[in-house]
Amino acid sequence: MHLFSFHTMKTPEEYKESLRKMRANIYKFGELIEDVTTHPFTRRTIEGHAQIFEASLMPEYQELLTTISPLTGERVSRYLSIIQSAEDMVANVKMKRLMFNLTGTCTGGRCAGFNALNAMWATTYEIDEKMGTDYHKKLRNWLADAQKRDITLAGALTDPKGDRTKPPSKQKDPDMSLHLVEKNEDGIVVRGAKVMICGVAAANEIFVMPGMRYGEEDKDYAISFAIPRDAENLTIVETRRPSDGREAEEGFDIPVDIGGITQAYLLFDDVFIPWDRVFMCGEYEFTGNAVMYFIAPYRAAIGGCVAGQGDIMVGAASLMARANGLNEKVFKQKLVQMVINNETTFGMGIASAVLGKKHPSGSWIPDQLLANVNKVHVATLPYETKRLTQEIAGGIGETGCLPSFKDIYDERYGKKLQKYLSANCSGETRAKIARLIEWLTIGAGVPGCMHGGGSPDGAKLVINASADIEKLIEMAKRLANIKEDIEAPKKK
Amino acid sequence: MHLFSFHTMKTPEEYKESLRKMRANIYKFGELIEDVTTHPFTRRTIEGHAQIFEASLMPEYQELLTTISPLTGERVSRYLSIIQSAEDMVANVKMKRLMFNLTGTCTGGRCAGFNALNAMWATTYEIDEKMGTDYHKKLRNWLADAQKRDITLAGALTDPKGDRTKPPSKQKDPDMSLHLVEKNEDGIVVRGAKVMICGVAAANEIFVMPGMRYGEEDKDYAISFAIPRDAENLTIVETRRPSDGREAEEGFDIPVDIGGITQAYLLFDDVFIPWDRVFMCGEYEFTGNAVMYFIAPYRAAIGGCVAGQGDIMVGAASLMARANGLNEKVFKQKLVQMVINNETTFGMGIASAVLGKKHPSGSWIPDQLLANVNKVHVATLPYETKRLTQEIAGGIGETGCLPSFKDIYDERYGKKLQKYLSANCSGETRAKIARLIEWLTIGAGVPGCMHGGGSPDGAKLVINASADIEKLIEMAKRLANIKEDIEAPKKK
Amino acid sequence: MHLFSFHTMKTPEEYKESLRKMRANIYKFGELIEDVTTHPFTRRTIEGHAQIFEASLMPEYQELLTTISPLTGERVSRYLSIIQSAEDMVANVKMKRLMFNLTGTCTGGRCAGFNALNAMWATTYEIDEKMGTDYHKKLRNWLADAQKRDITLAGALTDPKGDRTKPPSKQKDPDMSLHLVEKNEDGIVVRGAKVMICGVAAANEIFVMPGMRYGEEDKDYAISFAIPRDAENLTIVETRRPSDGREAEEGFDIPVDIGGITQAYLLFDDVFIPWDRVFMCGEYEFTGNAVMYFIAPYRAAIGGCVAGQGDIMVGAASLMARANGLNEKVFKQKLVQMVINNETTFGMGIASAVLGKKHPSGSWIPDQLLANVNKVHVATLPYETKRLTQEIAGGIGETGCLPSFKDIYDERYGKKLQKYLSANCSGETRAKIARLIEWLTIGAGVPGCMHGGGSPDGAKLVINASADIEKLIEMAKRLANIKEDIEAPKKK
Amino acid sequence: MHLFSFHTMKTPEEYKESLRKMRANIYKFGELIEDVTTHPFTRRTIEGHAQIFEASLMPEYQELLTTISPLTGERVSRYLSIIQSAEDMVANVKMKRLMFNLTGTCTGGRCAGFNALNAMWATTYEIDEKMGTDYHKKLRNWLADAQKRDITLAGALTDPKGDRTKPPSKQKDPDMSLHLVEKNEDGIVVRGAKVMICGVAAANEIFVMPGMRYGEEDKDYAISFAIPRDAENLTIVETRRPSDGREAEEGFDIPVDIGGITQAYLLFDDVFIPWDRVFMCGEYEFTGNAVMYFIAPYRAAIGGCVAGQGDIMVGAASLMARANGLNEKVFKQKLVQMVINNETTFGMGIASAVLGKKHPSGSWIPDQLLANVNKVHVATLPYETKRLTQEIAGGIGETGCLPSFKDIYDERYGKKLQKYLSANCSGETRAKIARLIEWLTIGAGVPGCMHGGGSPDGAKLVINASADIEKLIEMAKRLANIKEDIEAPKKK
Repeated sequence: MHLFSFHTMKTPEEYKESLRKMRANIYKFGELIEDVTTHPFTRRTIEGHAQIFEASLMPEYQELLTTISPLTGERVSRYLSIIQSAEDMVANVKMKRLMFNLTGTCTGGRCAGFNALNAMWATTYEIDEKMGTDYHKKLRNWLADAQKRDITLAGALTDPKGDRTKPPSKQKDPDMSLHLVEKNEDGIVVRGAKVMICGVAAANEIFVMPGMRYGEEDKDYAISFAIPRDAENLTIVETRRPSDGREAEEGFDIPVDIGGITQAYLLFDDVFIPWDRVFMCGEYEFTGNAVMYFIAPYRAAIGGCVAGQGDIMVGAASLMARANGLNEKVFKQKLVQMVINNETTFGMGIASAVLGKKHPSGSWIPDQLLANVNKVHVATLPYETKRLTQEIAGGIGETGCLPSFKDIYDERYGKKLQKYLSANCSGETRAKIARLIEWLTIGAGVPGCMHGGGSPDGAKLVINASADIEKLIEMAKRLANIKEDIEAPKKK
Repeated sequence: MHLFSFHTMKTPEEYKESLRKMRANIYKFGELIEDVTTHPFTRRTIEGHAQIFEASLMPEYQELLTTISPLTGERVSRYLSIIQSAEDMVANVKMKRLMFNLTGTCTGGRCAGFNALNAMWATTYEIDEKMGTDYHKKLRNWLADAQKRDITLAGALTDPKGDRTKPPSKQKDPDMSLHLVEKNEDGIVVRGAKVMICGVAAANEIFVMPGMRYGEEDKDYAISFAIPRDAENLTIVETRRPSDGREAEEGFDIPVDIGGITQAYLLFDDVFIPWDRVFMCGEYEFTGNAVMYFIAPYRAAIGGCVAGQGDIMVGAASLMARANGLNEKVFKQKLVQMVINNETTFGMGIASAVLGKKHPSGSWIPDQLLANVNKVHVATLPYETKRLTQEIAGGIGETGCLPSFKDIYDERYGKKLQKYLSANCSGETRAKIARLIEWLTIGAGVPGCMHGGGSPDGAKLVINASADIEKLIEMAKRLANIKEDIEAPKKK
Repeated sequence: MHLFSFHTMKTPEEYKESLRKMRANIYKFGELIEDVTTHPFTRRTIEGHAQIFEASLMPEYQELLTTISPLTGERVSRYLSIIQSAEDMVANVKMKRLMFNLTGTCTGGRCAGFNALNAMWATTYEIDEKMGTDYHKKLRNWLADAQKRDITLAGALTDPKGDRTKPPSKQKDPDMSLHLVEKNEDGIVVRGAKVMICGVAAANEIFVMPGMRYGEEDKDYAISFAIPRDAENLTIVETRRPSDGREAEEGFDIPVDIGGITQAYLLFDDVFIPWDRVFMCGEYEFTGNAVMYFIAPYRAAIGGCVAGQGDIMVGAASLMARANGLNEKVFKQKLVQMVINNETTFGMGIASAVLGKKHPSGSWIPDQLLANVNKVHVATLPYETKRLTQEIAGGIGETGCLPSFKDIYDERYGKKLQKYLSANCSGETRAKIARLIEWLTIGAGVPGCMHGGGSPDGAKLVINASADIEKLIEMAKRLANIKEDIEAPKKK
Repeated sequence: MHLFSFHTMKTPEEYKESLRKMRANIYKFGELIEDVTTHPFTRRTIEGHAQIFEASLMPEYQELLTTISPLTGERVSRYLSIIQSAEDMVANVKMKRLMFNLTGTCTGGRCAGFNALNAMWATTYEIDEKMGTDYHKKLRNWLADAQKRDITLAGALTDPKGDRTKPPSKQKDPDMSLHLVEKNEDGIVVRGAKVMICGVAAANEIFVMPGMRYGEEDKDYAISFAIPRDAENLTIVETRRPSDGREAEEGFDIPVDIGGITQAYLLFDDVFIPWDRVFMCGEYEFTGNAVMYFIAPYRAAIGGCVAGQGDIMVGAASLMARANGLNEKVFKQKLVQMVINNETTFGMGIASAVLGKKHPSGSWIPDQLLANVNKVHVATLPYETKRLTQEIAGGIGETGCLPSFKDIYDERYGKKLQKYLSANCSGETRAKIARLIEWLTIGAGVPGCMHGGGSPDGAKLVINASADIEKLIEMAKRLANIKEDIEAPKKK
């Protein structure tokens, strides 16, 4: 296969090499992971992210995965670009569907970072406009450099929060959200944690921004910056995922080698960030907008993600049907429903992209209402798709109800198991398909799409706020020729 | 209010005048309707269609409802335009939402005609390319003239069909689908019927095309043409709609005066059509494409229709809640779900528009898969929206459970009824709102969105045909590293 | 057909005769209805109720529709019985399904009365126990007599209410709920209205009780009694229903002659009730229980109602499919879903019946939680059943999109319409089926099941109150071996 | 706590002792499990089953979990009883709900055995009646003895099946379903496998019966018998479950110690069964009934199972909400929906029980239609319940997104993780709740309810077969006064 070559863009191998050079600061099960590219708990996610680099160099995917940067004039990864138009945003939605198609799961070390830098692109522009600061210029400089280095950039928003009824500054422990502890000539020092952060093991840097709107008393929490993943005093602990223990085993009980997810707790123990990487420091008035600029593209594009995994489920379910000896047409109604679910979240992402509007900073903000409607679909439709996948697959797929790889190859009884697993294909192949379905629907391949990028209830708040009830009431009154004014009673 | 004035576009009054000039050939309840603009069974739909003319002249709606015709260089109604781009198609979706907002219901005398002429625009181009005919030129000429005359154009596809297990030529009676009976120098003569045709009472002309794919033995059924609504030998019988008897009554039991639907049976008793109005005559090989070119924009745009009526339902339900003495926020979850339903069909229409592609004839064909997914949503989501409207409204709205206008104003007990109907507003206003909700959810305002433009089961066939199962299976196999080929067993 | 004959039970003709003897006090469209058994606006509901009398005398239905009264030792209508056991309650659910099967719609002149007298049976027992009154004895006497007279008894709970944020005594107008105005040696005098009351046209008497829990300041609203439908100073106005105008027309546009619903506004202008018919007068403390005793059997049994209408929809949709020339098996998935919906509301009614408990008064109170869960199903599942009926039926059924009876038989074009309506049966038969589907799904046959007997939101309040969250939390803690106590934070 | 003591019933310790005495023949990960009561891969399911013994001796549960056997006159486990009445079947549904409440998951070593012996109770009666055999007497004798020994009895129906388009006798390999290989004076010898068999590790014996209807050519597959779990030549391989690797780890990453599921592949390598344990051998004509008698009680009672786990989810979600610092009332709508789901499957089980009928053998067959409707609900509603649990829990519960037990207690950073995990409770407690939610919704606690006892598509076939379409069509015709007969067209 011929690959394009661009001097600004890394090959998969160069990408892995860049990770190997970094300081080891990631732990799982009490063990420090020395080389993330080979360690069983991280290598799959890195293989998945490496596919982005590979596909970016392939003619059929290049237009989707890369774009020309106005900052550098060079072709850069779309994940390091500013979304400047409806077309860019449409490409974002399609890119995410493609990457799920290629990896079977989430390549979370890129999308939150991509969204965060876009959100801060618009936000820093607004801060500078109003406050006379120079955050936007610094972000522009850092980004041009990041594009040249072709880094993988994770994004980190979620704080531990502690007691959810109180703002950060009212917590017993001030560290329950990430905050400023010192500001000096060279930069700032921060303390706290960001939690459930996707894909940091696959990332070179992490883009940090606030996860919620803050008031004045919480201004020390209004901070945004980019740091190397291996920054001093930053400790990372990877979380468990369903069946993650199998990742250390031999065989196909984790059926996918070329994709995987990780989610981590980032512990900031007085981490220093130089000023040229600081993009917000105390400007609490802009945290609300920053979050809204993050969620619009995120909640639009995530429709592409779940559609992309849904595609795999349509394929895997059909394959399992055949393996079981049934024509997949027997399940036509179910497969059509799965396609409807996939295309709905994909289509709503596209529509949100197209109905967006240009921000004065040059970035493109997708339509907020449609993006949040899509978030609600993303929190419901894929669950039906998973259920239908299990329904088509039969009992063997439902809970992965088949012997382990080790047993299937046991000297004493393995041959018998293989015989009894065989149907319209070998027992081994049928076992692999069953494991794939387990992985997709109730295993390590299930992405955190319901709460990733915020909860569906949060999305409903935005939908509710977007609905102009008074205007719709006037429409109804006009139609029925009603002149009397009816005041809304106080809600009890 | 200042209205724009364009010499090519009619005012509402000119539109009505054009209808009054036509021959009376529409019947209902055995009565010939002499003046459709004033007769109680047709005047509401004409008021609805007249709003298109009015809004087309209003600055805030002009861009949406009109466009510049490349045929004439003049500003023309969008309903008489060729959809040439994603933007045109997006405008189509938005236009339909707007018209439901303004009329509360369907202005069906325009959209099927609009779709049919676009479908035949591409189809005549293909016929001419392959067969050396000149249909496309004739269509172009007719259209340029129609634009100048600013006509209202209904569309007619659905044949009676008879026994659905047999094609037209195998029916006992050859007339069960509309067909050619004579072809001569001047034109053709057709016989049969088109049924359940929307909005002909409000139309100046009717665009006729096949409603399904035909084989060679049915080539006499492969006909398309445009005729005046009052053509010789064409008899039109309007159907009943829920509660249509009320349209002849005084008062607000039909609560909307500025919108309404009609659907008719068109009886063609050897109707003559001159050749310059004939756009297909026997070219059965192109009927399949013609239908597909019809359904793509129709099924995309209908998402705007039901969203537009859903908007009114959000408004009407909120107003009813207030009239009942409750703050609509009490029903926040339900209202959010209604908004989600509205925006989903709207958004899917937009996405289908955007992901379409250019036809060699210059027309724009929306994405077929997304359009058909939307058709399924249109056949389900609005039903939930109606149910929620009734749920919010309370018993008084559910089945319109309140006395008639005549009783509410009865000399003996009307005042008492008004008193007992009053709540957080007068009894009269509360009754009007209840009637509006009845009209929207179980009355004459309910559009035939489930089967209009074809059934959801038909849409599912297209979805099924669009899903590339083999490709998705390959994706799944690649992920799980499966090499064994598994053949699809025969379906029993 | 041989009919049983019981001296205590009326024949259908005797039932109609009993109605004809009553004073005319029912109005619709400003007209006083002299004979409810023949007037087009009331005769269908009376035919429906007459079927109860007929079926009660038929061997196959006798066990279901009648029972032996412990008060009289005679066989009486189940609608006039006290529900004393799980078996009685199961029979109630089945009886309602049967009556929908036989009439196609609601025979609402009996079930609310039946429920109300059962609710007051338990309530009067409790009042007497606590207050030393003799309401229960009076109710027993009245009931024994009612059984002997074999009356049809409607029930009336719903008050106009006015401003829903205020209790009756705080309304501007004290009449917004029915209330006591005078109490004397002979009886009481009441004023106000009961609204949306089902089936009074078919009833001999009306059982009135409070529709909600009242506090002390509203004690004048805590009244219950039974009165003849034609009581002095009681004026009844029938409401409109969808397409009710057709009831006065000739032909089959109202397709069902042997069933129909009415709902009325009852205007009480100082109506006198003698003491032996008064079952509550001021004992406000018992209104809460009275309502709960009403809703338990009502919300359980209504599952039988909607299942019974759903049965007809399965039949009508299958028949329409055949008439269209399609085998109903084509729609197997949809028909199975309709059956699931029917059996779910039916089954939940049965389960609520069986898990009930005996009240000290001897009556049987169905399980409140399951009854209210069923109310939520009744407010959702039949809507899907209706939608599926329309989907199977095709466009002709969706909105009753076919010409009127008058047009189908018009001398000029009627034969043509009949021809074009014909398919796998005559045009006339196909039209009748289409009208039946319209009537069932969007016409006069649609019962007010969503809000009848209270709203689904009210049911959810009961469900929420029934869920013992603390107990379920303890279960979860025990399983995960959690010892720490976690207090519920205040809800903001 | 005082426990009852019955000489026929084992204590939990006696139960475990009975297991320890058995021959080791269960493998997992290539390892022979010597003591199932202590081995990490089996001990949790045995603890769960031991709770049945404990609860059977507790006054509050005794009536539900035990009954008096007509065979022995002694109190016996309900799991070893014949279901003889609606009350017995209601108790079965409630018992399963209780056991899920107590163990959090499935105690599958008992219910399939219980169902299988009941199915064969009726079936052997029918065989003997028709064929003059003595299977029923042998079953009665074996059962009386089993009751005295108070054994735990698993059930095994599912065969590997191989190519699903062919019956067993047409497979390339005759062993793809379990079959007879030899019949002699002492008994029979069988070969093949039963797969995905629940709870055998916790069982003393296994009741085997056919899993589908067989024709004459497959009569060697028509076999039923009971054998000790440790029978000669029987090898058992336990399957993997989601996250089952954690079961061998220390700490709470498997959060439940008192419940667990196992599912196994049973390899029969010429296993001998003496005649007095053989209950069918070649009587293929009765296999259809046998299966139907199995699925009726199974599909009714499984509604209790999923309701019981749903109860835990309501508790766990509420607890997580509190732990997160939110009052669970914030999620009232979601919790009510979860309760509705729970009560619906529970209620449908109850209704199926009550509407059942007595078999001549004395056993009670629940209503087939309602049981199968319930199977469809069981395959859909719990998936929504799980989704809502994850939605309420927040991101930490969705995919169990938190560090491992080992990391939470790591010397270097464990304290920090605990701090950041704390909210309205300690970090440890919050972690335990999150793990419980993961276990319930996407972990080892998820039961195989969709395909256990047969698939929902199979249930829909039964529903379809149960619906008497002709009768419902006649109902519809009667209502609309339709006399014309309409034949069903052939399905294409």
